[in-house]
Amino acid sequence: MKKFRLMFAALFAAGLLASCSNSDNTEVTTASTAIAATAVIENIMTRTSIRQFTDQPVGKDTLDVIVKAGMAAPSAMNKQPWAFVVVTDKTVLDSLNAVHPHANLQTATAAIIVAGNMQKTIEGQGREYWVQDCSAATENILLAAHAYGLGAVWCGVYPMPDRVADVSRVLGLPDYIIPLNIITMGYPAQNPEPKDKFLEENVHYQKW
Amino acid sequence: MKKFRLMFAALFAAGLLASCSNSDNTEVTTASTAIAATAVIENIMTRTSIRQFTDQPVGKDTLDVIVKAGMAAPSAMNKQPWAFVVVTDKTVLDSLNAVHPHANLQTATAAIIVAGNMQKTIEGQGREYWVQDCSAATENILLAAHAYGLGAVWCGVYPMPDRVADVSRVLGLPDYIIPLNIITMGYPAQNPEPKDKFLEENVHYQKW
Repeated sequence: MKKFRLMFAALFAAGLLASCSNSDNTEVTTASTAIAATAVIENIMTRTSIRQFTDQPVGKDTLDVIVKAGMAAPSAMNKQPWAFVVVTDKTVLDSLNAVHPHANLQTATAAIIVAGNMQKTIEGQGREYWVQDCSAATENILLAAHAYGLGAVWCGVYPMPDRVADVSRVLGLPDYIIPLNIITMGYPAQNPEPKDKFLEENVHYQKW
Repeated sequence: MKKFRLMFAALFAAGLLASCSNSDNTEVTTASTAIAATAVIENIMTRTSIRQFTDQPVGKDTLDVIVKAGMAAPSAMNKQPWAFVVVTDKTVLDSLNAVHPHANLQTATAAIIVAGNMQKTIEGQGREYWVQDCSAATENILLAAHAYGLGAVWCGVYPMPDRVADVSRVLGLPDYIIPLNIITMGYPAQNPEPKDKFLEENVHYQKW
């Protein structure tokens, strides 16, 4: 975490110096573009799962921007085969916790359930792309939440049939809506070091 | 696009003013955090599929950071069941284009194939989480590429059996590696307006 924060701070300082010392718009634009890229990469690299939260509530405006970020994900043939249930009601969070104790909802102040809408999928063989589309939306939500200083963790529901049935029942989902996951969310009460998951063996060049 | 760029420019300017006019570190930190969050959200909201590219090559250093961003994605039980093939060789790009003409590789200068590694998945019912994990990695790659000014498009391979077989043959993938997609990439030769995909009907509060 510290490494990335320092890298960002250095680039930010460089941008400030360039901007304060002259009035060349091009230079400011170049600096701001570099800062933006650094901020995006830093946000991706420092996101990590958070499972314990303070009691500070998450504002509706923040949740709305985060859900919009989810909807900005790409989808196969632009079908946007998704739906989002935003939960901040403690009673509903507790009901989800009761049926899905692995979702770390005990101290959560919010949750977003990302679901597939089977009325909007590609027909035929491509139907299962909804899982990929909704996963991309989920990653956008996790990254947006992290950018706002929120903690979150992706708790899998689909394809586990029991979890799908339980979450659907608690939320009153119609049968064409399949919950992919519960994104448990809140302001972090823990500060774990992000995992360094780079593995050289995972990368091949040109061919295998 | 313009709306987001302006929003970012305004916040960036606010940060600069705050920083240039005083030496209060707290204020600079707050401004830089707000700028970082805005940059992250802007990057998510302005990413859109790019299918035509200039002949400017994509540097290896850039591709390496982008692949690392992919590997920073969350995965079920932290299995990291993925592999990445980075292609810049025109002969290989052409071979992929020949078997997968919908992948828009005609003018691409790079491609990253995100694949599932069946030797690293969860066993049993959770095996299929590899698709979600690799989709999250894919979204990270698309966002990182966009942050660097690259264009990219996610071209689905799995679960289409013919596409999986063809891409596997071209890249010489072992049988435990399943290509999920081809991410076609390069410097953009087109500048399409990002789609506004917000739909109020997609969002439900507390329950359905």
